[in-house]
Amino acid sequence: MDTANDVIIPIPPSANPRVVIIGGGFAGLKLAKKLVRQKFQVVLIDKHNYHTFQPLLYQVATAGLEPDSIAGPLRMSMAGNKDFYFRMAKVENILPEQNLIQTAIGKLSYDYLVIASGSTTNFFGNESIANNAFPLKAIPDALNLRSHILQNFEQAVITDDTEDLERRMNFVIVGGGPTGVEVAGALGELKRHVLPKDYPELDFKQMKIYLVEGNKRLLPGMSPESGENAKTSLKKFSVRVILEKFVDSFDGHKVALNDGRQIETNTVVWAAGVKGCLLDGISESSVVGGRLKVNHFNQVAGYDKIFAIGDIAIMETPDYPNGHPMVAPAAIQQGTHLAMNLRNLQIGKELKPFVYTDKGSMATIGRNRAVVDFPGKLRLKGLIAWFVWMFIHLIQIIGFRSKLVVFSNWVWNYLTYDRGTRLIIRPFVPRWEKDKKSQNV
Amino acid sequence: MDTANDVIIPIPPSANPRVVIIGGGFAGLKLAKKLVRQKFQVVLIDKHNYHTFQPLLYQVATAGLEPDSIAGPLRMSMAGNKDFYFRMAKVENILPEQNLIQTAIGKLSYDYLVIASGSTTNFFGNESIANNAFPLKAIPDALNLRSHILQNFEQAVITDDTEDLERRMNFVIVGGGPTGVEVAGALGELKRHVLPKDYPELDFKQMKIYLVEGNKRLLPGMSPESGENAKTSLKKFSVRVILEKFVDSFDGHKVALNDGRQIETNTVVWAAGVKGCLLDGISESSVVGGRLKVNHFNQVAGYDKIFAIGDIAIMETPDYPNGHPMVAPAAIQQGTHLAMNLRNLQIGKELKPFVYTDKGSMATIGRNRAVVDFPGKLRLKGLIAWFVWMFIHLIQIIGFRSKLVVFSNWVWNYLTYDRGTRLIIRPFVPRWEKDKKSQNV
Repeated sequence: MDTANDVIIPIPPSANPRVVIIGGGFAGLKLAKKLVRQKFQVVLIDKHNYHTFQPLLYQVATAGLEPDSIAGPLRMSMAGNKDFYFRMAKVENILPEQNLIQTAIGKLSYDYLVIASGSTTNFFGNESIANNAFPLKAIPDALNLRSHILQNFEQAVITDDTEDLERRMNFVIVGGGPTGVEVAGALGELKRHVLPKDYPELDFKQMKIYLVEGNKRLLPGMSPESGENAKTSLKKFSVRVILEKFVDSFDGHKVALNDGRQIETNTVVWAAGVKGCLLDGISESSVVGGRLKVNHFNQVAGYDKIFAIGDIAIMETPDYPNGHPMVAPAAIQQGTHLAMNLRNLQIGKELKPFVYTDKGSMATIGRNRAVVDFPGKLRLKGLIAWFVWMFIHLIQIIGFRSKLVVFSNWVWNYLTYDRGTRLIIRPFVPRWEKDKKSQNV
Repeated sequence: MDTANDVIIPIPPSANPRVVIIGGGFAGLKLAKKLVRQKFQVVLIDKHNYHTFQPLLYQVATAGLEPDSIAGPLRMSMAGNKDFYFRMAKVENILPEQNLIQTAIGKLSYDYLVIASGSTTNFFGNESIANNAFPLKAIPDALNLRSHILQNFEQAVITDDTEDLERRMNFVIVGGGPTGVEVAGALGELKRHVLPKDYPELDFKQMKIYLVEGNKRLLPGMSPESGENAKTSLKKFSVRVILEKFVDSFDGHKVALNDGRQIETNTVVWAAGVKGCLLDGISESSVVGGRLKVNHFNQVAGYDKIFAIGDIAIMETPDYPNGHPMVAPAAIQQGTHLAMNLRNLQIGKELKPFVYTDKGSMATIGRNRAVVDFPGKLRLKGLIAWFVWMFIHLIQIIGFRSKLVVFSNWVWNYLTYDRGTRLIIRPFVPRWEKDKKSQNV
């Protein structure tokens, strides 16, 4: 990147101190929206030009929604704000001594730097899984998975090899958290309502969906009741739940579990863990468990002017000794809180410690079923939980247009038992097939 | 493709004669829908799993619509029909002596073969244009162009090179038919209503849109009044119309016209011509002007059992000595007509010659303006023509869900002057930048 090394990213001069925010996810976008109302120059950097509403990615992957419905252009979200600048760029490293960041398009100086780079899929160093399984953390992941699932069935109708057919009809989801449970439920719905219409030649009794979780129960982050309810609901979609087992390897055709069991499949969805998106240039001593250690003001350990919020930040508190959960509400709350603290810093007021408000958690399992844990003891399940789940996701999704589009898609899907978006628009070539001669994509 | 050469694509046996249709465009899909009601086994082959409503591709390219809104899964369109089979495959060649086609996934025999492979962009053998200009004939083309336009502006805000800025702010559309006119109008709308909000740092007076047409007027396929009206409307969007000029070359940065004039630009949209998608194995003597010569029953010259319909077919008639226009209505009418003639062939009735019914033609130019030529002398322009254009496109688009989505997008775009779908989800790397070190995509 020699050419870009000397370039300074042009940003007009300002009388206000410059806050550079890395990442337009839930934390970074919320912070940017709060800061532009105060006396700061705000520069938001992201490698994509859009914000992703990650909780609904699984619906893009399972042909329920279009990518545009769950993503909003960052420039549109921030349009009309003065002294705000968006730059689409990948950040390469941070130079804290010089108050600079280095990106693929040049350098940028900051008065305050906020790292909101989020998290990415954690394959825990297992190369066979990293090479062959499908992550589900970004829009291209979701489109790849969708194309793969559909291409898989196109191949299933023409195969005369029973082993090949088995591998194409088996699906393994690893990770029994909300993402894994929601993917399994959505695949169960596709199996029951959508795919048999498209592929009348296939016998969908042969389609098997496995959900593998290392813990003793599903949804380990939620209440035991909700974990149990999710399991019961998944069984109604004939999802086979395998608990207390880990995946040792996946070569693209076969999953090996740690009890010696093997499952033939072409499709492993990996929802078993995430890790922080660390950036070069921050001292190793500030990293704990792959995340940036921050104090109660979200200041990164060892740095005055560098802050971290959202999934990338780990703040150890008495209530959360291992940091807050890596979820959207924590990210949004930290973004809001840091905007206030940066203002306090600017006017010489004392900083206030961040306190996380747990709003509860939830997961949906196909049509008409969900589980919701409110703070305290209130638990919901079934249809009422499903309505709560829909309502909360709709009010949170960015932008009124997306709300409208998501809502009309859901109404349509609900009434017709259909999924409209079954297009293979991003043909996916798995690694193990890239060299095959008879590639048909 | 040795491995696939010996494979036979599995299709269940049937008492009915097998019609193999190559291509799920307007012609092929209409034929398939008609034939499944008769006593035929129908096999539809397409390299994509979806039908594309090509007349609205330009709206996907200019961030007005999502791909799913203008494409419908072919399996969904044909669901519930007996003795119908879809196979996703690229056809490699035809073996007429053996009544076989060879595809990437194997061989398939036919009783009747219908070639409905459509047309593709014609660069007229100009390699510099083929390598660097953007075609607009398929969904990936539209997504590439959309990503390119948006990435271009992301780069424009950070460039300090005035020539580079000029190349990024100039847009050249080649071809003054409906597609070229519609792209120019849509870019004019983006310039006026959308882009200045997203990129307040850029001066959009500097954005120049050129429309280059070799003929003396725009819309040579329509009436002179409509051509003139389109030109007047485009001027209101500050589109510069250049008539009676041809493009000699485009190196990715500079367009050279045949009068020696040069325009600096990174973006050339090539809407200047199409050619038939010919398949290997059909005799050269059956090809006229890059299309398959058919008799009045759509039978390919020299073959009894091979038919061609839609853009790929050229039927010379007294009214249309150079074949019918390569438009959707001609394709749909031929599909319908051939279904009847195949039935006639089956029951020993005389074949009926195809007669094209001209339904008129139209083009839209941005917001509130269009031109419509009805058969006879009736011409419409302005707002009323725009409503006619919208109505006819909506009733024709495949599937009720798409109609609903397209309509709600249009209402939204109209009321808000906005375009919701400005995501760079398919980052486009132009050939001339693929080797650059400081690539930022």
